Amino acid sequence: MNQSANPVLVEVWRGAMLDCVHRGTAVVATASGEVVEAWGDPARVILPRSSCKMIQALPLVESGAADAAGLTSEHLALACASHQGAVPHTALASRWLAGIGLSEPDLRCGVHQPNDPEARHELRGRRAAPDQFHNNCSGKHCGFLTANRHLGGGPEYVDPDHPLQQAVRLATEEVTGETVSGFAIDGCSAPNFAVSLGGLATAMARFATAGTSFTGVSFTGARAGAARRLVEAMAAHPVLVAGEGRACTNLIRACAGRAVVKTGAAGVFIAIVAERGLGIALKIDDGNARGSEAAIAALLARHGALERHDPVYTALADSPILNCRGFAHGHLRAAETLLD
Amino acid sequence: MNQSANPVLVEVWRGAMLDCVHRGTAVVATASGEVVEAWGDPARVILPRSSCKMIQALPLVESGAADAAGLTSEHLALACASHQGAVPHTALASRWLAGIGLSEPDLRCGVHQPNDPEARHELRGRRAAPDQFHNNCSGKHCGFLTANRHLGGGPEYVDPDHPLQQAVRLATEEVTGETVSGFAIDGCSAPNFAVSLGGLATAMARFATAGTSFTGVSFTGARAGAARRLVEAMAAHPVLVAGEGRACTNLIRACAGRAVVKTGAAGVFIAIVAERGLGIALKIDDGNARGSEAAIAALLARHGALERHDPVYTALADSPILNCRGFAHGHLRAAETLLD
Repeated sequence: MNQSANPVLVEVWRGAMLDCVHRGTAVVATASGEVVEAWGDPARVILPRSSCKMIQALPLVESGAADAAGLTSEHLALACASHQGAVPHTALASRWLAGIGLSEPDLRCGVHQPNDPEARHELRGRRAAPDQFHNNCSGKHCGFLTANRHLGGGPEYVDPDHPLQQAVRLATEEVTGETVSGFAIDGCSAPNFAVSLGGLATAMARFATAGTSFTGVSFTGARAGAARRLVEAMAAHPVLVAGEGRACTNLIRACAGRAVVKTGAAGVFIAIVAERGLGIALKIDDGNARGSEAAIAALLARHGALERHDPVYTALADSPILNCRGFAHGHLRAAETLLD
Repeated sequence: MNQSANPVLVEVWRGAMLDCVHRGTAVVATASGEVVEAWGDPARVILPRSSCKMIQALPLVESGAADAAGLTSEHLALACASHQGAVPHTALASRWLAGIGLSEPDLRCGVHQPNDPEARHELRGRRAAPDQFHNNCSGKHCGFLTANRHLGGGPEYVDPDHPLQQAVRLATEEVTGETVSGFAIDGCSAPNFAVSLGGLATAMARFATAGTSFTGVSFTGARAGAARRLVEAMAAHPVLVAGEGRACTNLIRACAGRAVVKTGAAGVFIAIVAERGLGIALKIDDGNARGSEAAIAALLARHGALERHDPVYTALADSPILNCRGFAHGHLRAAETLLD
């Protein structure tokens, strides 16, 4: 990313003053790779972070590992999740690993405090430390371990040279239509392969059209079935994808089958707009989730997947900011350029 | 603020990729209003938010109200604070109000959860709600109430037309050398008067030079004494200005008398560089404290108030970002343009 300025996508007003702005790049593409519209340069290469978890889960499903382990749509939703470590997430992840004969120390995601306030308070109350199941990526790692067990790889499954990560890399290249130019190590220790925003949006359009009448440019065979199952799992279990109160969960519910979405750290968001066969990918330059959440809500509304009067839309993209006495002293809103 | 792009002041790298940037405006000025150096436009008007609490405290001291109420330097530090609602802050604020015959309901700052994790946990453990003393601005409001009681104003002391706020407005105009063009209501319900970054930096240079040999362009008389007492109070009680672990507290300690600093919400930071008679004011466009803390640390180092090998500097402005297994997968650093 160079330092030329991307457009302002989100504004924060305080009284009559424009107090903060969030700049970024956003791309809407079709499954054939056509850029329908873009703000900033679609060729901009980013780290997709957790927004690409459905790509990272493709080897799990395509290889037959998911079926061999008897995984349900709940497991697949959790594999695509950045969850908040609430009981529904940690309990499912724990049962999942036990079901394939593995346990917490087999994970390589590391430990962080759960983002769920209840879970954090509960741990603190009994002076207990979190474990790797609380990591927001533990579902992805359960998926990695399931695929890896099926494929017979060694235990260090997050090594970038490990056959599992090489399979993820290959899948990334195939679904984006790009050669991966590099990677970084993610917060959960897995390699995160760099992609262009145009390539990421195209990949998401292919997820949107997998197994539908939008054929020819989308996935075929095992990939089409796998992509469809993953998208359907995310749509069916919004709370497993993130958690109560979180943007992904609220947006998937509000889109009601028209689209599913996934956030990534440092200002990334994608949408799989099944109804229109489109993919959306965006990155806020400063990495602030306040910006990426507002921008994705605006683009979902722009493409018919969310109503602007929906409370989920207004909370994220057209929202008063209240002060400590309930006075609306500010307003967060998507920039005019994202509204139609 | 228009939407022309300000320079990148802070970079966040992940592996070999520039992952996030924080743009902003920064100004270094003398007490005569000379701009020593600037990134972006010194005429940019911002809401200074809590960075101007020492200006808002001038009427308290200049009027004689502080002395009449027997306030110590601890009280004055708390009046300039955005504290985290830990016991040292709430206990002092509570004693302060009782000492002038007032109590919690007289405050108009409103309630928010304390930012101190221990205080939050303690409240939650006994299922108690926070009160207005936990508000990060409660010290400022104790100062407002003390000044107001001395001046004989009515109880709604945060009304923008209230004589106390008019006194704050006049002080703001005098110390910045500007006519206030507007205001917004702050999170704590007090009016927050808009100033240019150049004006704010100039005001801070005047605080830096109050009562020193840098005379002629700085404050005189009661204002000089008041400004000096406020700066000395902040320097003497860093933990009261913010709290353990917070950037302001750590920076004031590390600067060891060479400078004091104060943050403001939405990406604002100021520094009063006593040793060199300079003032610094900056605003990060996206409002992220990660950006404003890195930028102020870099400017303090640039102007001799902080060493680049100091752990406080490296933590804020040249810091590895560790993942959940302790691997340094990223790096936060002030942009080259801020380093000399």
